[in-house]
Amino acid sequence: MTAVLRTALPNAVGLPLVDGSNLESLVNGVLAGDARRIGQAITAVEQEGGSPSLLQALFPKTGRAQAVGITGPPGAGKSTLVQRMAQAYRRRGQRVGIVAVDPSSPFTGGAILGDRIRMAEIYTDPGVFIRSMATRGALGGLARATWDAVDVLDAAGYDVVLIETVGVGQDEVDIVQAAETVVVVLVPGLGDDIQAIKAGLLEIGDLFVVNKSDRDGADRTAAELSMMLDLSGKADWRPPIIRTVAPRNEGVEEVIDGISAHTAFLTKTGQNALRRERRTRARLLALLDERFRRTVQMQPADRDGLAEAVARVVDRREDPYAATARLFDRLFREPVVR
Amino acid sequence: MTAVLRTALPNAVGLPLVDGSNLESLVNGVLAGDARRIGQAITAVEQEGGSPSLLQALFPKTGRAQAVGITGPPGAGKSTLVQRMAQAYRRRGQRVGIVAVDPSSPFTGGAILGDRIRMAEIYTDPGVFIRSMATRGALGGLARATWDAVDVLDAAGYDVVLIETVGVGQDEVDIVQAAETVVVVLVPGLGDDIQAIKAGLLEIGDLFVVNKSDRDGADRTAAELSMMLDLSGKADWRPPIIRTVAPRNEGVEEVIDGISAHTAFLTKTGQNALRRERRTRARLLALLDERFRRTVQMQPADRDGLAEAVARVVDRREDPYAATARLFDRLFREPVVR
Repeated sequence: MTAVLRTALPNAVGLPLVDGSNLESLVNGVLAGDARRIGQAITAVEQEGGSPSLLQALFPKTGRAQAVGITGPPGAGKSTLVQRMAQAYRRRGQRVGIVAVDPSSPFTGGAILGDRIRMAEIYTDPGVFIRSMATRGALGGLARATWDAVDVLDAAGYDVVLIETVGVGQDEVDIVQAAETVVVVLVPGLGDDIQAIKAGLLEIGDLFVVNKSDRDGADRTAAELSMMLDLSGKADWRPPIIRTVAPRNEGVEEVIDGISAHTAFLTKTGQNALRRERRTRARLLALLDERFRRTVQMQPADRDGLAEAVARVVDRREDPYAATARLFDRLFREPVVR
Repeated sequence: MTAVLRTALPNAVGLPLVDGSNLESLVNGVLAGDARRIGQAITAVEQEGGSPSLLQALFPKTGRAQAVGITGPPGAGKSTLVQRMAQAYRRRGQRVGIVAVDPSSPFTGGAILGDRIRMAEIYTDPGVFIRSMATRGALGGLARATWDAVDVLDAAGYDVVLIETVGVGQDEVDIVQAAETVVVVLVPGLGDDIQAIKAGLLEIGDLFVVNKSDRDGADRTAAELSMMLDLSGKADWRPPIIRTVAPRNEGVEEVIDGISAHTAFLTKTGQNALRRERRTRARLLALLDERFRRTVQMQPADRDGLAEAVARVVDRREDPYAATARLFDRLFREPVVR
């Protein structure tokens, strides 16, 4: 009744876009810091399933770059702040990679970041690499792709990688998990939903920036934030609240100094090892998850019972939980535990 | 070398919070429309893994309610609009359930929706049930819980279920997938990130609302939106753009009429069957996914090799892709395909 097919899982998932000869020149190009090759490498990791062979080749050369996440609600002026931060790092002699991740374009497969144009000042600097990313498929691999892109830029020799993402949801939390230090950017007067926004961001922020601080309400936003941080009871590291006016470069050096202080704190307390472990765990779980989704969705619909299960639930002949239990047991006969 | 353990998967995942005797009174209470029982039922489905036994009991009684999703960026005035929509449905003799989902509180486990207070007018109406939800765990079951909550309210006899969610990312897309018709709410002058926001929301909106239309820039927002809809080439259903000033009740009836027109369109063209199938498929995949994550994460860390794999990747003795392939093959020996 039940036929067992041994599908070649390592090939079924993450088909490399990059073949052998191609791979070598791509790897060498990335390691040499060739911007065109770096761009091609990020395109490869952006695809559904990523590019395992490329990542496997680059991975031993990673581990040197510092990854900083910058997140916050739309309209907080993150792009300008990121540009100013990149310039500040450049003045300190650091090479900077910027990955702008846009989880709000789930279907279009193209990041539309209208304000990229304002980054013109740093576009021409060879010490800065800028890349926008959006999810290519519906399988939720954007966090995985961000991690991979950070690895590419790390292997290419960038000292700092800034991960910029628009938004305040679980997507963004997943994405900034690739960073060692997370900067949350807020602005005065975001309206009614500010309380909801802060609740989520409060826990992931290592630094808080009140941008556009020349606007009315900046004092109140900073005071509210400070109160919420008091209540949250973060004992060991009290996230600083830094006011900026990014276009005028006000407060930007303080942000960079705050990030350095956080790095020093992580090192001194040994928390960096703990964080690295937690992040790696999250990364492996995300990869496992993507692999699972691809395995399920790539099975022919008429053979894995998914289509049949959908029909049964639609007709109310079976409830979703019973259908899932049946599908799960059918797809994976039994877990093998060492 | 490899020991095979048959773990009781149906029990390992989604342990019911609700035991036998408890279950019966809960089910009966929900079916009788008892608000306290409905609240308890939603609390049960909100937990990690949900409450399969409860859902299985209620599922045969569902399928009557109309689910409408309302989403858009923070500050768009969605809560007030939802309140006004609920009142409009009440005037038409319909009972209304409201599920306000907040994916921006991933860790706190509590929805902080400051503007709930403004809903006071409808809180006292027994024909309206309001509930805020936030994700309880880190396993991403919020979309699954939303689906289940809609089922609870459906079984309880509510004619319309309004699913309100704050945000513009993949989370929100997943959440509003539980709805048959999706209303996207925008406001004039959202700032720089508006292009990025629109790109993502454009594809999920069946109706667009420009709320706070008494503000400057409403014409421009509506015109831009109209242009983007022209370009998107949605041939069969052209999403209407409706202007509202929710606190003054302006345009709210038009929104309700627009939703009815969309429902009629889906029925007439037979697309409702197609949508139902697509939504059910997404629901089963979300359930499978949650089950997979729970299975992986609930394995003892020292036995499933995850902790060891994390250590190997942290030390750069193995790359993340190789570690994932090894873990995947170890957890699931082989997929069984009929």
